[in-house]
Amino acid sequence: MHSAPTPTARSEQRRQQVLDAAAECFRRYGFHGASIAQISKHSGMSPGHIYHFFENKEAIIAAIVEQHVAHVLDLIAHFEGEDDLFGALIRDVDIPLHEKTDPAFFGLWLEILAEASRNANVADIVRGADTLLRAHVMRLQQKARDGRDIRSALDPAAVNEVIMAMFEGLSNRYVQNPDMDKAEVEKALRVAAQAMLEV
Amino acid sequence: MHSAPTPTARSEQRRQQVLDAAAECFRRYGFHGASIAQISKHSGMSPGHIYHFFENKEAIIAAIVEQHVAHVLDLIAHFEGEDDLFGALIRDVDIPLHEKTDPAFFGLWLEILAEASRNANVADIVRGADTLLRAHVMRLQQKARDGRDIRSALDPAAVNEVIMAMFEGLSNRYVQNPDMDKAEVEKALRVAAQAMLEV
Repeated sequence: MHSAPTPTARSEQRRQQVLDAAAECFRRYGFHGASIAQISKHSGMSPGHIYHFFENKEAIIAAIVEQHVAHVLDLIAHFEGEDDLFGALIRDVDIPLHEKTDPAFFGLWLEILAEASRNANVADIVRGADTLLRAHVMRLQQKARDGRDIRSALDPAAVNEVIMAMFEGLSNRYVQNPDMDKAEVEKALRVAAQAMLEV
Repeated sequence: MHSAPTPTARSEQRRQQVLDAAAECFRRYGFHGASIAQISKHSGMSPGHIYHFFENKEAIIAAIVEQHVAHVLDLIAHFEGEDDLFGALIRDVDIPLHEKTDPAFFGLWLEILAEASRNANVADIVRGADTLLRAHVMRLQQKARDGRDIRSALDPAAVNEVIMAMFEGLSNRYVQNPDMDKAEVEKALRVAAQAMLEV
């Protein structure tokens, strides 16, 4: 065993280059269709370099999911700074709406979920990430209700699930109906989210 | 050009055997990972027989999606027989909840959506099916509101999208959180659906 050298900015940049190329390959060819050779070609890095950063394709998925988690935590932190958290959550439904219907996002995410439904290692990765995010979203939900003295008649964990299902399902919907009117969808999202937080 | 023989029960049964085996293979190995050779092995039918029924894997997907559409249309017909359609839609949210969180369903469906997000032919198949189903769900929604003299302040097409996103997203959620409490989720689904139909 030897300890790895402290990652330098250059090394970080190369690692990111592999992740970006891998994301593009998974999106285009699927997890199984994408080979290390293709990722090598797309990233302009040798297979040896790729293996230096990641043991296998599953390790790449784990790193992609980790970056997704970091992004969502940033978004949660943005909400936590709001004076009227309840109002902000209802107002800003357009943020997840646009993210979930961005082909660069869902093309990869649906592939990861499809893989997770047949690959126990990938399932562990997404479930671990989800457990972490769920705890943060739960806290946000509780804080939003506390700010308006609302005691929920619904199970907060179940509200969490349905709010997350509603937003995540927008990816599925967009694949099937790319002509959806997002401005109108935004209004319906507000009504549903507010009803679940208020009851 | 010659016309195909009238399909007999035996031929229908064999076609279904291919479809079931293909669904299992797509679920297990992904659309690209599943080969006609594997589908042949799983169905106990020769590749020649498979090609007799289906030109290629995309044609198999089209047939699977067609059966899914038929199933949803049956479900819609069940609702249309209800005296209080509005009440029935709210009461029976457990039907789509259990269907969308059934691994036999979502394992295949997420794979089809992932493929649709990178394959224009598969995208056409799911979009064509969705256009048809959307029209039926819209009619159902309108009839439910009419039954209670509710004039919606929301765009009915947007309500459709969000209700469908909420249910379809339950598949995504279940992959990430198989421990969700479905009995509690059911209650939150009712609150959200009712709010969107009532406003």
